[in-house]
Amino acid sequence: MPVKVISSRRVYSGAVSLRKDRFSINGRVVEKEIVEHLPSVGILAVAGDSLILITQYRRAPDKTLLEIPAGKIEDGETPRQAAAREMDEEIGYTGTLKPFLKWYLAPGYDTELMHLFVATDLKKIASRRKMDDDENIVAKKVKLSAAVKKCYSGEIEDAKTIAAILAYASKPL
Amino acid sequence: MPVKVISSRRVYSGAVSLRKDRFSINGRVVEKEIVEHLPSVGILAVAGDSLILITQYRRAPDKTLLEIPAGKIEDGETPRQAAAREMDEEIGYTGTLKPFLKWYLAPGYDTELMHLFVATDLKKIASRRKMDDDENIVAKKVKLSAAVKKCYSGEIEDAKTIAAILAYASKPL
Repeated sequence: MPVKVISSRRVYSGAVSLRKDRFSINGRVVEKEIVEHLPSVGILAVAGDSLILITQYRRAPDKTLLEIPAGKIEDGETPRQAAAREMDEEIGYTGTLKPFLKWYLAPGYDTELMHLFVATDLKKIASRRKMDDDENIVAKKVKLSAAVKKCYSGEIEDAKTIAAILAYASKPL
Repeated sequence: MPVKVISSRRVYSGAVSLRKDRFSINGRVVEKEIVEHLPSVGILAVAGDSLILITQYRRAPDKTLLEIPAGKIEDGETPRQAAAREMDEEIGYTGTLKPFLKWYLAPGYDTELMHLFVATDLKKIASRRKMDDDENIVAKKVKLSAAVKKCYSGEIEDAKTIAAILAYASKPL
């Protein structure tokens, strides 16, 4: 698909930034706002027949949601290092991390690419790292079978968490 | 969780808007950028043992992605009306629409709530509606079993599409 960028203008810079792109696709000129967000990690933390999920107040929906641990990849971190840090900060475990899947959360207008890891051999961390100041997280152990049910019952309302749980639960061996 | 909004300031208005919220949670004051995006619909279009997916150039990742048909709920539309319109615009079918799941795409910073429908009894539309000017969409019929494989192979890189396909394929009866 022949795409030519005509202009790209930053309209806001912050933890989440916004730019306005003008580009031509198949000769048609299109203008579009693009949310610029750092790549991120999500972790499916597996403890026997259970997952360790978190509940967290989310300002955007103004709700407390049940989600997998996740967060931005900070400057200089590899995805694996970010996943280990988020596990420490959000659930207080170390584990063996295996890359599983990668996905865009909202590719229609947002650059965020999330690297999903599966964490096993979980070990509780004695001295927890300080959490990001906007986090208000409670870790919850949920049986995998119960987590799958919550994907259908509406108890889980986060697309990445549903994708992660169902991808793991229905993975062809 | 006691949350008090201190201030909320629009910093950009457009098809995607951005605001900066200052709020206190458990007494701690937090500042956060929030992306404001209209609620949306996604459609799992089922034709026998196949799904009708679309490929579309996405500016944010600068890639052509394989996704379910989806789009914003326009002013005055119900989710069902939006789903019918998007099916017309993006794949050129009508169908029987059943609400399936609802999810936030990026609840950490984005207000978008997507209503997922399952569409069956598909009928091709003779005279297609004009598409949004930024769309460059090719409909593709993919066997459900092949679509599930693509969720694991990396051929599908969109979280909502992976969540939708796996939720449908592994739905407990």
